[in-house]
Amino acid sequence: MNYIDLNSDIGESYGLYKIGNDKEVLKHISSANIACGYHAGDHNVMMETVKMANTNKVKIGAHPGLPDLLGFGRREMNISPKEIYHLTLYQIGALAAITQAHGTHLVHVKPHGALYNMAASSRPIAEAIAQAVADYNPSLILFGLSGSELIRAGKEKGLLTASEVFADRTYQPDGTLTARNDENAMIHDVKFAATRIIRMVKEGKVTATDGTDIDITADTVCVHGDEPAALEFIKELKAALTKENIKIRRRWSGR
Amino acid sequence: MNYIDLNSDIGESYGLYKIGNDKEVLKHISSANIACGYHAGDHNVMMETVKMANTNKVKIGAHPGLPDLLGFGRREMNISPKEIYHLTLYQIGALAAITQAHGTHLVHVKPHGALYNMAASSRPIAEAIAQAVADYNPSLILFGLSGSELIRAGKEKGLLTASEVFADRTYQPDGTLTARNDENAMIHDVKFAATRIIRMVKEGKVTATDGTDIDITADTVCVHGDEPAALEFIKELKAALTKENIKIRRRWSGR
Amino acid sequence: MNYIDLNSDIGESYGLYKIGNDKEVLKHISSANIACGYHAGDHNVMMETVKMANTNKVKIGAHPGLPDLLGFGRREMNISPKEIYHLTLYQIGALAAITQAHGTHLVHVKPHGALYNMAASSRPIAEAIAQAVADYNPSLILFGLSGSELIRAGKEKGLLTASEVFADRTYQPDGTLTARNDENAMIHDVKFAATRIIRMVKEGKVTATDGTDIDITADTVCVHGDEPAALEFIKELKAALTKENIKIRRRWSGR
Amino acid sequence: MNYIDLNSDIGESYGLYKIGNDKEVLKHISSANIACGYHAGDHNVMMETVKMANTNKVKIGAHPGLPDLLGFGRREMNISPKEIYHLTLYQIGALAAITQAHGTHLVHVKPHGALYNMAASSRPIAEAIAQAVADYNPSLILFGLSGSELIRAGKEKGLLTASEVFADRTYQPDGTLTARNDENAMIHDVKFAATRIIRMVKEGKVTATDGTDIDITADTVCVHGDEPAALEFIKELKAALTKENIKIRRRWSGR
Repeated sequence: MNYIDLNSDIGESYGLYKIGNDKEVLKHISSANIACGYHAGDHNVMMETVKMANTNKVKIGAHPGLPDLLGFGRREMNISPKEIYHLTLYQIGALAAITQAHGTHLVHVKPHGALYNMAASSRPIAEAIAQAVADYNPSLILFGLSGSELIRAGKEKGLLTASEVFADRTYQPDGTLTARNDENAMIHDVKFAATRIIRMVKEGKVTATDGTDIDITADTVCVHGDEPAALEFIKELKAALTKENIKIRRRWSGR
Repeated sequence: MNYIDLNSDIGESYGLYKIGNDKEVLKHISSANIACGYHAGDHNVMMETVKMANTNKVKIGAHPGLPDLLGFGRREMNISPKEIYHLTLYQIGALAAITQAHGTHLVHVKPHGALYNMAASSRPIAEAIAQAVADYNPSLILFGLSGSELIRAGKEKGLLTASEVFADRTYQPDGTLTARNDENAMIHDVKFAATRIIRMVKEGKVTATDGTDIDITADTVCVHGDEPAALEFIKELKAALTKENIKIRRRWSGR
Repeated sequence: MNYIDLNSDIGESYGLYKIGNDKEVLKHISSANIACGYHAGDHNVMMETVKMANTNKVKIGAHPGLPDLLGFGRREMNISPKEIYHLTLYQIGALAAITQAHGTHLVHVKPHGALYNMAASSRPIAEAIAQAVADYNPSLILFGLSGSELIRAGKEKGLLTASEVFADRTYQPDGTLTARNDENAMIHDVKFAATRIIRMVKEGKVTATDGTDIDITADTVCVHGDEPAALEFIKELKAALTKENIKIRRRWSGR
Repeated sequence: MNYIDLNSDIGESYGLYKIGNDKEVLKHISSANIACGYHAGDHNVMMETVKMANTNKVKIGAHPGLPDLLGFGRREMNISPKEIYHLTLYQIGALAAITQAHGTHLVHVKPHGALYNMAASSRPIAEAIAQAVADYNPSLILFGLSGSELIRAGKEKGLLTASEVFADRTYQPDGTLTARNDENAMIHDVKFAATRIIRMVKEGKVTATDGTDIDITADTVCVHGDEPAALEFIKELKAALTKENIKIRRRWSGR
């Protein structure tokens, strides 16, 4: 039987500011990436979010980001790999303490936003993150863009990795995501998106923007829940996967 | 043989900003309280400080503070005990991850500045901190003002506690420290200060400002190293203690 | 003819985080208190908010708060009057520059949250704020709780002041607001609330919780717009005021 | 008679953290660039620094930076020109209010660190900064790297500009500074450095790293005071300039 993991970024509220629809999203996903206070989230939000994830039996992962609350961790900063190693460790540890207080534990780590993108293309940044994860706990699973430097670095450090794919994005012939500002970047038709994910899982293939088929590893799909339409998308995607006997559960590539 | 612990707050630099003389202080103390990024310290400084403490074989403790870099965690904020629990956990975890990456581990927790003072007199704040420590790792030693609510709360939660005394401060008949703005608050004569500490260790007594002798538990003495005179103070205090066969090493009260 | 000012706290979003319903609220009020980046708001939000206020011909005021984004400026901090003076100046200036870039200018200053409360009861804090306003621009109007130290300090510094009253809160016999955690603190009946405001404007009286009538100056009423019910409240209040020939427009007490 | 301006970045302390030697530097310079709370400085430090600059009759300028205290505004961030416009306005306004409270006023604006570098080479960033200055107060003088986009943008907006040169750095044939990591980047010999500055002022020429002479406008020289050697450098440079009848005073290029 085939299976795939559904992950979502949650716990991104801050103080009085609320964002996302974590309560609903947690009913549908298998892995939760919880913000750690640098780009979003705070110690109160983290506590509440871990509790909710736990109640929903969703696996908990750290979602470290750049120290930029104002930019929500989405804008690149010129930070050294050494500092990336430090800030990754710091954020993993902070969330780990909170999971521990709930009698549970971290299962994975997925970098956020600009840090995720930097780790996809920069080998030194990718290695810094993978090293931080390995030094903290080598049994944690490292999430990264399928085919990215981060996945390669994780495997080299001996980590289990989860290759992430996107249901609503198109791919270039070289396996990278089409840039968001390109008019062909997004896939809005849920059925079409589901069909692509199913093929990725079953055949390890996806059709690129030039019409050619490329190889792709699909361990986990990123879904969003901040808008009503996004929740519908998750439900339809799950229904389509179920129909094809693809089960939603945690999955990763071998070391 | 008698013994006592010498502790100091270190790792309080931030970014380009340098504070303290950690390198020298670490040669003389047995316990280092390392700032965790809220009132001082950052992920880079924490990494460097843990490394130095480790090299000097000094025991490492988390030194969580209020989220107020501008005020250096020294001004009281009206924060709920629940949030104090969260922010203590967060900071302990962040530092724990960094110690773990160095192949070492946390031994104690001592709250900083306004948080330390709030925990000395407020039972709910004291309990929140003690609970966070107990929930994270019940074998950690909780540092607090000798005779404070924090020490009481720690013992009630089943934690080992280290009762802290001050060499350069006078005590009130009720065992509290004389307020800093009182003209009799400080003791500047090192010899006199050392004599008081020696008596606290050997007899469990100190003379209060009204001339009466009061009971005091002295597990650890707080020393500072940010000024040349402070370093001299440490050296003279150590010499005086050694002369009296009081050894500098980690010490705590039973559960 | 009688008149009264309606003011509301707006521009409290931050980065990706949205809060409030500024667009709708601005259609109904005469004075906008715009957050200045310390407790809420950021340079982008401030720009957008000043533009909207300007378009709606609403008078613009600075809404300085404590440096505590996580607590939304609602928790008291032990900050010296001297520093309150500095942080008030800083925030007024920051917003003033942004209004200037829109070809408009500041008209008033109203402290936010914990700073507002501290300024109501603490004379030194009140004086620090009033002095900052006077030193920056003595023609700015200072908003404060009716009967508060802030209003007294403002008058003493020679400032125009606007005494603020609350439609949805009850008053103690000494003129202070009933504490929020008291069961009689809030007034939920809009008609009753409107009747009280009308009497404050026309007679300068309000009935306190013990049934006695007390004197009250009502230059401006604080309204909220963050929930649909709140918007309805504003509309009903305005209708009731209009029916009584009370016009909504800027108003202040003499120096 | 020839003249030149000496400027220095000051007011970069934060909270308990002290940096620089502002008191001494202010005795020797003609223009002070004061940090505005984003990359360094805080409302207390700004107040104190403006007071000291005023006492020393040094002209005051705003020194806005990126919102990155941890990185001291030295690391590039991917921020839009629109936001650069906003954050420049915000910081100018904040400092302006503080100068106003001291009965003085801003004279110039010089961006800090990464923002300065981004504005040197990026036209949109340069225009955003120049527009913010022009919209706030078109009589402010804009400081930028000699030959940079920022100077060009300033002139186009009709601002007075001060072209900045560096005594301790070498220049490439295209007029840009040699990158710091290049072994020929720095000039350590004060006499040689002074000779170069004198020639820039008198002839408008400097010898580039390839031995060719290039044109350069020198309105102001950047000096540092954070180390004893740096203070000596300033003194020797001033002595050399005086000997050549070059006076230290504010200077700028025509619109």
